[in-house]
Amino acid sequence: MTTTAPIDPTEFRRALGAFATGVTIITARAADGTPLGMTVNSFNSVSLNPPLVLWSLANSSLSFDAFCKAEYWAVHVLSAEQQELSARFARRGEDKFSGLELDAGIGGIPLLRGCAARFQCRTASQYQGGDHVIFIGEVLAFDRDETAPLVFHGGRYAHATRRDPAEAKPRSAHLAGSFGEDFLGYLLGRSHFRFFAQIRPHLVEAGLSDEEFYVLASLTLKPLMSAEDLAAGMEGVLDEQSADALRALVERGFARVASPASSTSSASYELTDAGRGCALHLISAAKAVESQVLERLGHADAVVLKSLLNRLLTVIDPQAAALWGRGET
Amino acid sequence: MTTTAPIDPTEFRRALGAFATGVTIITARAADGTPLGMTVNSFNSVSLNPPLVLWSLANSSLSFDAFCKAEYWAVHVLSAEQQELSARFARRGEDKFSGLELDAGIGGIPLLRGCAARFQCRTASQYQGGDHVIFIGEVLAFDRDETAPLVFHGGRYAHATRRDPAEAKPRSAHLAGSFGEDFLGYLLGRSHFRFFAQIRPHLVEAGLSDEEFYVLASLTLKPLMSAEDLAAGMEGVLDEQSADALRALVERGFARVASPASSTSSASYELTDAGRGCALHLISAAKAVESQVLERLGHADAVVLKSLLNRLLTVIDPQAAALWGRGET
Repeated sequence: MTTTAPIDPTEFRRALGAFATGVTIITARAADGTPLGMTVNSFNSVSLNPPLVLWSLANSSLSFDAFCKAEYWAVHVLSAEQQELSARFARRGEDKFSGLELDAGIGGIPLLRGCAARFQCRTASQYQGGDHVIFIGEVLAFDRDETAPLVFHGGRYAHATRRDPAEAKPRSAHLAGSFGEDFLGYLLGRSHFRFFAQIRPHLVEAGLSDEEFYVLASLTLKPLMSAEDLAAGMEGVLDEQSADALRALVERGFARVASPASSTSSASYELTDAGRGCALHLISAAKAVESQVLERLGHADAVVLKSLLNRLLTVIDPQAAALWGRGET
Repeated sequence: MTTTAPIDPTEFRRALGAFATGVTIITARAADGTPLGMTVNSFNSVSLNPPLVLWSLANSSLSFDAFCKAEYWAVHVLSAEQQELSARFARRGEDKFSGLELDAGIGGIPLLRGCAARFQCRTASQYQGGDHVIFIGEVLAFDRDETAPLVFHGGRYAHATRRDPAEAKPRSAHLAGSFGEDFLGYLLGRSHFRFFAQIRPHLVEAGLSDEEFYVLASLTLKPLMSAEDLAAGMEGVLDEQSADALRALVERGFARVASPASSTSSASYELTDAGRGCALHLISAAKAVESQVLERLGHADAVVLKSLLNRLLTVIDPQAAALWGRGET
């Protein structure tokens, strides 16, 4: 849809949202010593030599006068972990700095911690630009940390993950008729089986079959689990086998009937101390495998992968995701 | 690491890279009618009312004079599919517009297609900023398209995926000792099993077990598959069962021995016409399931999920990923 003048501000804002940006917090110190801070995504670089950056501030901002008078200010590029900080500094009025550990910057700028990058600047120019003022700052000092960035796109927070160089090229056609690397079912199945293969030696050592392990793991999710909970949780994973596996765990002394079936409710099960001990042992072994894998994948990508798999589960399987996501120990 | 003056340009550029941005192509028409275009990520919004945007251009740019003289220019916010276009317009010299379908914009601006958003502007101001000039443009017209954005971060192209609102909150602690929604193994297993559960009815209808289906699917990856290929491909998926499943497929008339084992090589297998027919039927059923799931997940997230699973596989299982990724039909 092409919009010609007059420009609708809501539509215009939405179109601007198509451009993804990082998220920054700009801080400064007011003449009376009050720390100032606000969330801004109109930051960008200007010049490498001299080192200049810019950002824009709405004329209507509460801190407008104080920022215009501040000689020094700092741009904090937020990391993926700082979404709450972004929200805090985007709100009006409250004491935004309350409880935060700060560093002291040039000219007393309050510096936040844990950011992807920080630029300490001196105002070089201010230009009027419609309902905003553009601040151009000379960068006097900066630091950075290798961390995943917080991203804003389409009016929401987002993750950024690096692309494979190969993605620029169209997929080759020879896999079109087969279950290849572009088929989600293949990717999920293969990833699952290969990941699980690294955990299986620990199960074998503990004398558990895959099926017994799945049931044991599911029993860790709640202190008491009814036969229906278990069946629902195992639906599609183990069908008939889940009852057998549960029976085997009871025979091994890893699980027991907590309350037998009655006319109004079905039996519920719980782990024994031995079962919990075995589960905890396998959990720590599995988490060690996970740590190694995720370290090689990289923290930022790991966060996004988990987020997307959680979302995929809500799409494939809304009921079970809710059931399991709410599980309590 | 805090760097104080003098600022090292390489380190400074790297720190600026911590701020994620979309990618734009700015186009204009030179006085002699030549179309101009370059890739720029220093774009940002300035003002809603009047509608103003800005971007910066290096004084050293080949098109510097022509852009400075252009009254009208357009900002194209690139979509995730336009990485090649971004690379093309980032190079110097060649005829960047060759072969592209263009729309005609205000004042003859050459407009590219398939973008996430386009802003047609008239220069409102130009400001010197060190080694760049900042162009401020009044937006005269714009259009946009709901599409995933191309993102640049840390000197590389990236994907953006929206975050779950819940991610801002720290994970509740009750899952720390169990296999919950934050454990990759759980997420992979559950996603695989739930996805597969939607395909299984088609296998049942075709009279195939899960194991027979896995082997059948793997036989579609190459015209001929040796017993070693198959065993390597099935490692961790099916161990002893793969030989049984292969035997069952041969008995069903879905696969056959293409060349028997000899003293120098093992037997190799291929699909029969019936086996290929059955595989193609199941492939199309499975792809229909995939389409539904991916539609609900959203195209952009689906692309990123597949990309991350492919990367995960190279991390968990470099050999098999290479073996299967190169499979040919």
